[in-house]
Amino acid sequence: MDSNGVDEQEMKLVQGAAGYVLEDVPHLTDYILDLPTYPNPLQSNPAYSVVRQYFVDEDDTVPQKIVVHKDSPRGTHFRRAGPRQKVYFKPADVRACIVTCGGLCPGLNTVIREIVCGLHYMYGVTEVLGVNCGFSGFYSKNTVTLTPKDVSDIHKRGGTMLGTSRGGHDTSKIVDNIQDREINQVYIIGGDGTQKGASAIYKEIRRRGLKVAVAGIPKTIDNDIPVIDKSFGFDTAVEEAQRAINAAHVEATSVENGIGLVKLMGRYSGFIAMYATLASRDVDCCLIPESPFYLEGKGGLYEFIAKRLRENGHMVIVVAEGAGQDLVAESIEQQDASGNKLLKDVGLWMSLKIKEHFAKQRKMDITLKYIDPTYMIRAIPANASDNVYSTLLAQSAVHGAMAGYTGFISGLVNGRHTYIPFNRITEKQNKVVITDRMWARMLSSTNQPSFMNPPNGVTEGAN
Amino acid sequence: MDSNGVDEQEMKLVQGAAGYVLEDVPHLTDYILDLPTYPNPLQSNPAYSVVRQYFVDEDDTVPQKIVVHKDSPRGTHFRRAGPRQKVYFKPADVRACIVTCGGLCPGLNTVIREIVCGLHYMYGVTEVLGVNCGFSGFYSKNTVTLTPKDVSDIHKRGGTMLGTSRGGHDTSKIVDNIQDREINQVYIIGGDGTQKGASAIYKEIRRRGLKVAVAGIPKTIDNDIPVIDKSFGFDTAVEEAQRAINAAHVEATSVENGIGLVKLMGRYSGFIAMYATLASRDVDCCLIPESPFYLEGKGGLYEFIAKRLRENGHMVIVVAEGAGQDLVAESIEQQDASGNKLLKDVGLWMSLKIKEHFAKQRKMDITLKYIDPTYMIRAIPANASDNVYSTLLAQSAVHGAMAGYTGFISGLVNGRHTYIPFNRITEKQNKVVITDRMWARMLSSTNQPSFMNPPNGVTEGAN
Amino acid sequence: MDSNGVDEQEMKLVQGAAGYVLEDVPHLTDYILDLPTYPNPLQSNPAYSVVRQYFVDEDDTVPQKIVVHKDSPRGTHFRRAGPRQKVYFKPADVRACIVTCGGLCPGLNTVIREIVCGLHYMYGVTEVLGVNCGFSGFYSKNTVTLTPKDVSDIHKRGGTMLGTSRGGHDTSKIVDNIQDREINQVYIIGGDGTQKGASAIYKEIRRRGLKVAVAGIPKTIDNDIPVIDKSFGFDTAVEEAQRAINAAHVEATSVENGIGLVKLMGRYSGFIAMYATLASRDVDCCLIPESPFYLEGKGGLYEFIAKRLRENGHMVIVVAEGAGQDLVAESIEQQDASGNKLLKDVGLWMSLKIKEHFAKQRKMDITLKYIDPTYMIRAIPANASDNVYSTLLAQSAVHGAMAGYTGFISGLVNGRHTYIPFNRITEKQNKVVITDRMWARMLSSTNQPSFMNPPNGVTEGAN
Amino acid sequence: MDSNGVDEQEMKLVQGAAGYVLEDVPHLTDYILDLPTYPNPLQSNPAYSVVRQYFVDEDDTVPQKIVVHKDSPRGTHFRRAGPRQKVYFKPADVRACIVTCGGLCPGLNTVIREIVCGLHYMYGVTEVLGVNCGFSGFYSKNTVTLTPKDVSDIHKRGGTMLGTSRGGHDTSKIVDNIQDREINQVYIIGGDGTQKGASAIYKEIRRRGLKVAVAGIPKTIDNDIPVIDKSFGFDTAVEEAQRAINAAHVEATSVENGIGLVKLMGRYSGFIAMYATLASRDVDCCLIPESPFYLEGKGGLYEFIAKRLRENGHMVIVVAEGAGQDLVAESIEQQDASGNKLLKDVGLWMSLKIKEHFAKQRKMDITLKYIDPTYMIRAIPANASDNVYSTLLAQSAVHGAMAGYTGFISGLVNGRHTYIPFNRITEKQNKVVITDRMWARMLSSTNQPSFMNPPNGVTEGAN
Repeated sequence: MDSNGVDEQEMKLVQGAAGYVLEDVPHLTDYILDLPTYPNPLQSNPAYSVVRQYFVDEDDTVPQKIVVHKDSPRGTHFRRAGPRQKVYFKPADVRACIVTCGGLCPGLNTVIREIVCGLHYMYGVTEVLGVNCGFSGFYSKNTVTLTPKDVSDIHKRGGTMLGTSRGGHDTSKIVDNIQDREINQVYIIGGDGTQKGASAIYKEIRRRGLKVAVAGIPKTIDNDIPVIDKSFGFDTAVEEAQRAINAAHVEATSVENGIGLVKLMGRYSGFIAMYATLASRDVDCCLIPESPFYLEGKGGLYEFIAKRLRENGHMVIVVAEGAGQDLVAESIEQQDASGNKLLKDVGLWMSLKIKEHFAKQRKMDITLKYIDPTYMIRAIPANASDNVYSTLLAQSAVHGAMAGYTGFISGLVNGRHTYIPFNRITEKQNKVVITDRMWARMLSSTNQPSFMNPPNGVTEGAN
Repeated sequence: MDSNGVDEQEMKLVQGAAGYVLEDVPHLTDYILDLPTYPNPLQSNPAYSVVRQYFVDEDDTVPQKIVVHKDSPRGTHFRRAGPRQKVYFKPADVRACIVTCGGLCPGLNTVIREIVCGLHYMYGVTEVLGVNCGFSGFYSKNTVTLTPKDVSDIHKRGGTMLGTSRGGHDTSKIVDNIQDREINQVYIIGGDGTQKGASAIYKEIRRRGLKVAVAGIPKTIDNDIPVIDKSFGFDTAVEEAQRAINAAHVEATSVENGIGLVKLMGRYSGFIAMYATLASRDVDCCLIPESPFYLEGKGGLYEFIAKRLRENGHMVIVVAEGAGQDLVAESIEQQDASGNKLLKDVGLWMSLKIKEHFAKQRKMDITLKYIDPTYMIRAIPANASDNVYSTLLAQSAVHGAMAGYTGFISGLVNGRHTYIPFNRITEKQNKVVITDRMWARMLSSTNQPSFMNPPNGVTEGAN
Repeated sequence: MDSNGVDEQEMKLVQGAAGYVLEDVPHLTDYILDLPTYPNPLQSNPAYSVVRQYFVDEDDTVPQKIVVHKDSPRGTHFRRAGPRQKVYFKPADVRACIVTCGGLCPGLNTVIREIVCGLHYMYGVTEVLGVNCGFSGFYSKNTVTLTPKDVSDIHKRGGTMLGTSRGGHDTSKIVDNIQDREINQVYIIGGDGTQKGASAIYKEIRRRGLKVAVAGIPKTIDNDIPVIDKSFGFDTAVEEAQRAINAAHVEATSVENGIGLVKLMGRYSGFIAMYATLASRDVDCCLIPESPFYLEGKGGLYEFIAKRLRENGHMVIVVAEGAGQDLVAESIEQQDASGNKLLKDVGLWMSLKIKEHFAKQRKMDITLKYIDPTYMIRAIPANASDNVYSTLLAQSAVHGAMAGYTGFISGLVNGRHTYIPFNRITEKQNKVVITDRMWARMLSSTNQPSFMNPPNGVTEGAN
Repeated sequence: MDSNGVDEQEMKLVQGAAGYVLEDVPHLTDYILDLPTYPNPLQSNPAYSVVRQYFVDEDDTVPQKIVVHKDSPRGTHFRRAGPRQKVYFKPADVRACIVTCGGLCPGLNTVIREIVCGLHYMYGVTEVLGVNCGFSGFYSKNTVTLTPKDVSDIHKRGGTMLGTSRGGHDTSKIVDNIQDREINQVYIIGGDGTQKGASAIYKEIRRRGLKVAVAGIPKTIDNDIPVIDKSFGFDTAVEEAQRAINAAHVEATSVENGIGLVKLMGRYSGFIAMYATLASRDVDCCLIPESPFYLEGKGGLYEFIAKRLRENGHMVIVVAEGAGQDLVAESIEQQDASGNKLLKDVGLWMSLKIKEHFAKQRKMDITLKYIDPTYMIRAIPANASDNVYSTLLAQSAVHGAMAGYTGFISGLVNGRHTYIPFNRITEKQNKVVITDRMWARMLSSTNQPSFMNPPNGVTEGAN
């Protein structure tokens, strides 16, 4: 095992010419011998009869790195997603289940809908169960039967029709339950924690030698899952965030020295904040977890606020929820009143801090309005683009499971749908690379300070 | 003077048959003799040439109370708004100014736009000044010139193009400034505090014997101004509040024992909360300043929450910002850490309290999501209905000032535009009457407890 | 009988002092003797226990005309809507039905929902049937049972869950059916044609001496029903129309000599066009059925278009669907190709005519974009304001029927909910009065010609 | 020259190992010797100082085909877009111009804004001119000066602030004008016709030996430009189309045998129709130019409509504007009345045809509602995703021109910004490949017929 708990032998690596590597996903036949195959029912589906290239060539793969030089080695590839000529499940034998875990994200219902409809309409599978309220629902709840009719309108609603929860992962109880219910396809929709759980479930199933395919669909509104181009719901979140930024802009410009402060999602990565800032063009400062900042002294936030207010009379600040956590922690630990729980929220904390600073300074009367649109963003239904995207992710997962793949997630890589081994997306988080061009574009659009040179000895805690 | 500081002699009361009373508004001729009049320029305006009944009959009035019995006395009436045959200003002599005070409200820019355009296109007035950033702008700021071109698109934006502020009212500095700038029409847009200021300005102007008309356009997103049917921006606010309630509903229904808590505007009156609840139909409990509630014990909020969660698995609570202020005050005064400032916000306070209660009780795991859409609501542009309404309010104010009326506000009474004396709208606040049918409708739609019988000795502070 | 087929004796007129007249609505006791009464179940409803003035005083009435002089006669009044102390139906005996007729209108589903919920939660009525697809559904379709659960989310969707149709009115078949199904409360939602049908149903029921209450809820997106302040859905329609006008404005301003032409609803009355124009402020010309216009010659539309394009480079025209029908008819009757059917649409007809005119003239290259948002407007769900309004209309209808009133519609008069006899709203249509101030305001905002003086002998047909 | 009029010698092909080919773009140094270079001003821009990898490696390229096998040849690549270490223009010498041509598309204003802001803030270029109303504006109009202030809010508005037109391309007049005005960077935003014009301008400039960089930004709401992943505005269009489809769905489901027919953009390619159908899931039939269909007989549209109505009672049809043009042409040529011009619109034509068919048949009473949202879609501002995308396209174009590249368009290939030679995007159109999987997914979601087997001799014209 390596440090991420990945069995090295599990990694299915295939080498090719010119530095080509395929990081393949597991297959039921890796540990079950002599599995029968069946012709893919899509062959007789009239919708697909016109499509010559419908079945994916077994050899199709997609490179991870595509900015190349004339003589670059070809590097890592992933297996292309899509329907295969042969499937490893007889449709009438399939008993699938779907579970959603973690926080809400636009598109959850679309993914559920399209797994149900994909299994039903493409493969003729009729037994699909919904597990209620996350992982713990496997053992503490009844399941619900899901038919195309049950899910036909759910993509127009936000949230998840199955309910969700955090935690509740107990690998062996879950796998016991999967066995008890005779489930043989498990679709798990959730973030990196959830996919680690999915990986554990897959390993336990493999250990027990069960013919059960485990497929993950990565869900993270923060876009913090690596390898894949972007997560479903992200576009919708960035779009909806505009509403809050616009409001902050109007509030700020309607008073003298007005500050609009907007907190956006992003505990560990600032993608929503960065893209929302780039899309809006009304933001003067964008603070994300990846780029530390400080408040006091030369080059600090207070100085920048004062400068921008003097120049323009107003400003808009966007802060990702995970930004400045070091400052917040330092500032709170000295106090223990119950209201201080609220200060763990960087937005509330910053609004207090900024108000206190300018009140103490007595040089400038500011008016700060704080907006936290988090739940208004994540509870909306997916926009059209995320609806299509979620549909394709779900269909890819279904094709993969039917084709006997397991221990994989369905993900978009350079615009192509692929199957990626669990460990590749759970081993680290996707983060804004602040030495990269997108962050530079953002900085260039706001002209905010780089916060690279905190004054000696001046830290927030010192005040 | 009566207790509201209203000079009794100022009240212009006209009596008629069958109990008819007209509460008239002041007129420049009340204190300036021999003012010349001019024919209304609208007479030669082609747009109005087809309109036979364009000029308002001098005797037109509108009753305040219209639910009547066969033999009811006729009661209080107000003067109908609209253009008069004769005006008391030569258009070329008019020098008008506009000021906006207090918090943002959808429609502010429309009112500004239509005062400018109304003066310009209907009366040929070309000198209109904008006073920046509220009352204090009269003496601490330069004014801006406003032409139809400057304001042509502002109704599509939220906020106020003039900027606003609270306070800053210094009657004599302001009137000095009005004299210095040779302004003879003053349009003041703001809430009840602002209109009290407007009233003081009017009285000082009258004392100095100046030919300056003072017109107020009442602005209150909370709808807490009495006499008038509703304030501009209210419809838009109720509409936009749906978004937050929807999000709360989605969050609540996507987890087990989910609670969505939404704080809406309404410091002293719960109209937005009540109408938003009625419009949405997804709300389980609506708390407003006019209807006290309590948390603990039989018939209290905690009990109701537990009951509703057991029945439905989720619930949505809407709380007006001014609700439960007694409970909040009692709870906070015992502590003085800086984070507790945040607890003055009833929404943050309630979310902490509810979480603490259920955590302590250990019977039910709840998940509470708190949404505060305040600034996202008040910063949006007016919807179509409020745009039309704001337009007519502004035009009425212009017609009134041109006709020599002063010391009045322009307001809708039973669907008719009228002129109302300042004191009638500043002497008390409009509140939800909880012994009235609308509140009963609301209660009937939520089935929430009446909170009428707090258990003996159980008060929030006792915990 | 008068010319409208109204039995004079049916008109229940009550006279009072000072010219007071009450135009009362029929009551079951008008033709059925010795009907027992029951206490209103709301008396024991906890939601209403706090409401002191909940039951409407039997003597409450609302005046139709409220712009009055000191000595005006008091004029026509209507009975105030709301719950009565006594009801004429035992809840367990009620068997109600609901039908929707005519075109779609935002709020239909809210009205359905609130009749069902009002009967259920306020009065404990459990038997409510939905009649499918309009009047003909009484005899050609099965009914559906409606419970609060069935209707709980329908107000968030456009259209009508019951389906609708035009025509299909056969009084005696319908009344036969009402008898057969033992229905004793009939709620009919539809426009003036539908309410004429409702009136005929009421008369036949009365003729047969049945204890069946007939209540109408007037529906007309065009706002063309007289007496009432406005129809439900109208606000939503005006709001949604802004989207089309904005698009027309963008199209027009993005090319040289760009014309954006928007057709809005309004076969006989131009309220939507007029209010949408007033709300938008981007419209250069608004054409409605009530105000004839002409194309050619001095003072005609072509001349105005040319002038406005020369001045501004672009223009937006809003035309109500019923505007210029004389011109359209004259122009089409000469031709009979199948494509000409399309020309009955005034929008398509005008876009062809304007293009042909400027092409023939060869003086100005114009680009015209035609937008018909009709179905996109009428299919949306009600906005918050219309949701509240529709709720109250439905509740008023329920209170009225339970109280034994019949042959009435539920309508808002000067901001108060009232019961109005059928004949008063079917005897004529509500129209924009072009000699009134609102139309003048509209003209003043567009500065369009009055089209009052068509050149001698120049008519469209002459070309 | 090859058949596309491309000078073979112009094609800059670079070969590498394993089948690697780079299709490079022209550079000013290809035809002007000894051009001086300057350090990129970004080097001293604080925003970029933290970005280590900011300058694009000269050797970075992006493959066109990325679904590969272990031993695939590496294939065609394009040069990666982005800032270069050295630039070929001194900022003070740059005089850029921007022109927009063809139909409206969401994002046009963002592209204009970001070329202006990119030149200004990244490179310190202050002279940027806007050419009004398309290509002809070069010689028939004055230009406008564009500063960051002029464009600061335009991305929130639809349309193009510069105005646009079709045609008007006169290569030598345009190039004369470019010389006269001493312009040395030309940014041309438009569709494939426009980019052919841009290519001609580039060639003429090269022929004259001028130091003028010509950069194209491909604009096509239809997404019909090849090679690139998608065009800006496409996402927004698909999103906005949902509104029309929802309305059609509500109309169809609210009557018996209701048909909602929506026409969407797409003269030669059906991408918007296909993606809008996939996103909505309420569509029963999607007709696009790439997939012929027929009306009559077995397997035809009428039969499918009748079947779907019998099954569901309602249906929604989406038709791309270019679908069925053969049928339309055949049907119209027999008639020549003026109303028939309207029938060139496939939506109007189909609505007439379907109504006539079912009226003639007398078996089924249908109600068809036709919605054409075209101008309401294309006139809206870009959504967040398209705003970010348009920003990056514009910045890439600016980087490319500053670096001395010319005769290129800025385009996204497999998620990477690249420079692509003009001929590669003008030589053919991007079309929906109906033998590909996306179309199969669409067919599978609607279950519509394939229209592959028109009955013998039955063509529309025969009726």
